[in-house]
Amino acid sequence: MNTPIPAELLSVGTELLRGEIVDTNAAFIASQLPLLGFELQRLTTAGDNLDYLSDVLKQAMGRATLVIASGGLGPTQDDLTREAIAAAIGEKVAVDPELERNLRGMFTRMGREMPPHNLKQATLIPSATALPNPRGTAPGWWVEKNGKVIVTLPGPPREMTPMWQNEVVPRLKTRFPTLPILARTVKTFLIAEASVAERLQPFFAVDNPTLGIYAKPDGIQARLIASGNDAARLIDESEAKLRELLAPYVWGKDDDTLEGVVGGWLVKHKLTLATIEDVSGGLLASTISGSPQSPGYYHAGVIAPNDHAKVAWGVSPDLIKQHGAVSAPVAEAMASAVRDRLAADIGVSVTGIAGPSAKPPGVVFIGVADSSGVKSWQQQYQAGRADTRERAAISALFRLRERLIELELA
Amino acid sequence: MNTPIPAELLSVGTELLRGEIVDTNAAFIASQLPLLGFELQRLTTAGDNLDYLSDVLKQAMGRATLVIASGGLGPTQDDLTREAIAAAIGEKVAVDPELERNLRGMFTRMGREMPPHNLKQATLIPSATALPNPRGTAPGWWVEKNGKVIVTLPGPPREMTPMWQNEVVPRLKTRFPTLPILARTVKTFLIAEASVAERLQPFFAVDNPTLGIYAKPDGIQARLIASGNDAARLIDESEAKLRELLAPYVWGKDDDTLEGVVGGWLVKHKLTLATIEDVSGGLLASTISGSPQSPGYYHAGVIAPNDHAKVAWGVSPDLIKQHGAVSAPVAEAMASAVRDRLAADIGVSVTGIAGPSAKPPGVVFIGVADSSGVKSWQQQYQAGRADTRERAAISALFRLRERLIELELA
Repeated sequence: MNTPIPAELLSVGTELLRGEIVDTNAAFIASQLPLLGFELQRLTTAGDNLDYLSDVLKQAMGRATLVIASGGLGPTQDDLTREAIAAAIGEKVAVDPELERNLRGMFTRMGREMPPHNLKQATLIPSATALPNPRGTAPGWWVEKNGKVIVTLPGPPREMTPMWQNEVVPRLKTRFPTLPILARTVKTFLIAEASVAERLQPFFAVDNPTLGIYAKPDGIQARLIASGNDAARLIDESEAKLRELLAPYVWGKDDDTLEGVVGGWLVKHKLTLATIEDVSGGLLASTISGSPQSPGYYHAGVIAPNDHAKVAWGVSPDLIKQHGAVSAPVAEAMASAVRDRLAADIGVSVTGIAGPSAKPPGVVFIGVADSSGVKSWQQQYQAGRADTRERAAISALFRLRERLIELELA
Repeated sequence: MNTPIPAELLSVGTELLRGEIVDTNAAFIASQLPLLGFELQRLTTAGDNLDYLSDVLKQAMGRATLVIASGGLGPTQDDLTREAIAAAIGEKVAVDPELERNLRGMFTRMGREMPPHNLKQATLIPSATALPNPRGTAPGWWVEKNGKVIVTLPGPPREMTPMWQNEVVPRLKTRFPTLPILARTVKTFLIAEASVAERLQPFFAVDNPTLGIYAKPDGIQARLIASGNDAARLIDESEAKLRELLAPYVWGKDDDTLEGVVGGWLVKHKLTLATIEDVSGGLLASTISGSPQSPGYYHAGVIAPNDHAKVAWGVSPDLIKQHGAVSAPVAEAMASAVRDRLAADIGVSVTGIAGPSAKPPGVVFIGVADSSGVKSWQQQYQAGRADTRERAAISALFRLRERLIELELA
């Protein structure tokens, strides 16, 4: 096993301290550091103040081996990360001729004259080398001084992420070589966080791989991180054991999404899909259609928020009268109706109540109709309107996946 | 004007340092502090380590008058915020009989026995009073010591937000009375951030109200914060001036949403709405149906991802052949078709290309059909698949709003 190397992260920008943006960069960088052998020990968010920033940097360098600063690389006088690092390590910033040439070339290609204040984006200190930024005017810095490394990254995520992946990760791997480290996330649905923790108790006694359990909108996730020369074997064996302990709730791993998993099954079996929903109001459709493969199987969808619309799509008014619109028979009739009317192989329905009404809110029925018949499931959520809508859509995908597995096994 | 009171925020939890969750609590609290007269000077995120936490707390109390700690109030041995505060100010935690009674009562009502380790959630220190938490087992703390105030809040946002609003805000207002402070946000669409900044140049020379400009998915927002006895007049006058400078791009203010604004118009004029979309794949429908008032006007919606589905809903195949599915005539035909077929007063359509295809991606047409005819607009986005989908849905709402204004004025 590796002994983790201490790291700190500094997010720079008064806009973060005013709550005007959420710091997604910090979460991204934090999630990547363990895979490179680092342990993030502190994250500090500070405003655009030179003394304050250089003070925070000095403190961080006193504690950690790697300090990453994100933001504050823009061209305005409020962008002070470069100056703060220079002050913290006692060096002076100066314009680098090659960086200046690159920057002027970038403005020329945009057909604009470079404003004079942008020149500060072409500066370096003696201990810094520049990290190229093909998506913006602010290069990053890689600083080495007294055995410590400081990295600066631009604030906009679309500039930060590629610079992290293409420039910073390779340098960190060279500068701080570690034994292999591998992560694997196993994704579940319909099982509570506490039950996952209970079933995975054996993992908590082990320190390689480590286990983390996280609640996400699409279910509870278990994340394993293994390190050492044996990491590959360890992570595969641990995943297998974890899947055994959590079966039958596991639906995917790592970057899998429920809509992607379902889409894969539909493509594999050359099946088309149609949807009809009330309570989720288009969330089921938009989740399915968010998958780039969806044009291959997603036939059409319907939002039927009221009885009138349900009847128009082929649900019998008597059925609604007899059982109510939020009921198993109506969910099944809706699924069958869109399957027939939209000439799809499979019809999926969602009907439920998210807000105040005669029935208790949080009741949702999911229907799935296919060539062998129609099936429905009832769910009960203790959640607000928005969460109930979201969970209803996710449940529909999960039930569809269950049904596809049954069909394949049949 | 008020002189801002220095505040610091401490987010507690190793899960934050591992990037497993994004710290939305910090952004929420940070956005509220200026309205109470505080300036957030630093935000520190630290893991579940007692020495580390009490060290960070001591440092923060040395610099700031108000220190807010969020997270680390759970029942496990990793939840150390209470112990860290006790260590930082040299007091001892002890079980409070009344808090214990409340906690046991809560478990009894859930029909469960209280696990012994939950008892730590019923502890206090001499300088702390408890902040009730009706949504969870962890009360917050309000600590006063040596002229400083420390507040603890539970980590889950659904527990944190009501505790902040119902318990913390009133106490902060009493303990740190300020002159009035008022915020107002004006929301625009279809104007670039740089153009907003240019038009609002006169505001940057003024320090009361302050102005912030933020890019959000539904457009650029300008946020004014005014303080002093004159704040009410100042904020109204500034809003009026700002609207004048930004007309005709302004569509709402403060908590307004585009779907809420559009819904308000539809309710006022007793009009019903139907939608049909391809590229946005249900995002338009789900945004509209997310509004709690939508059952009053949202009639039905259709997702028609392919030519077959468009023809099935009433678009002429010849029209698609002649102009292509992503074209003004087809957008208009789609809007008219759902208006007729779904018997709604207004039909809105979105047709476009988000991913790789024969036409350049990012082209979107919006159609609106109503009693006086049908109209369409073309948009071109330089964005990825997900962003194009989202912007197409928002554009449709914005165009619908434009059309409703024209209809009212007609």
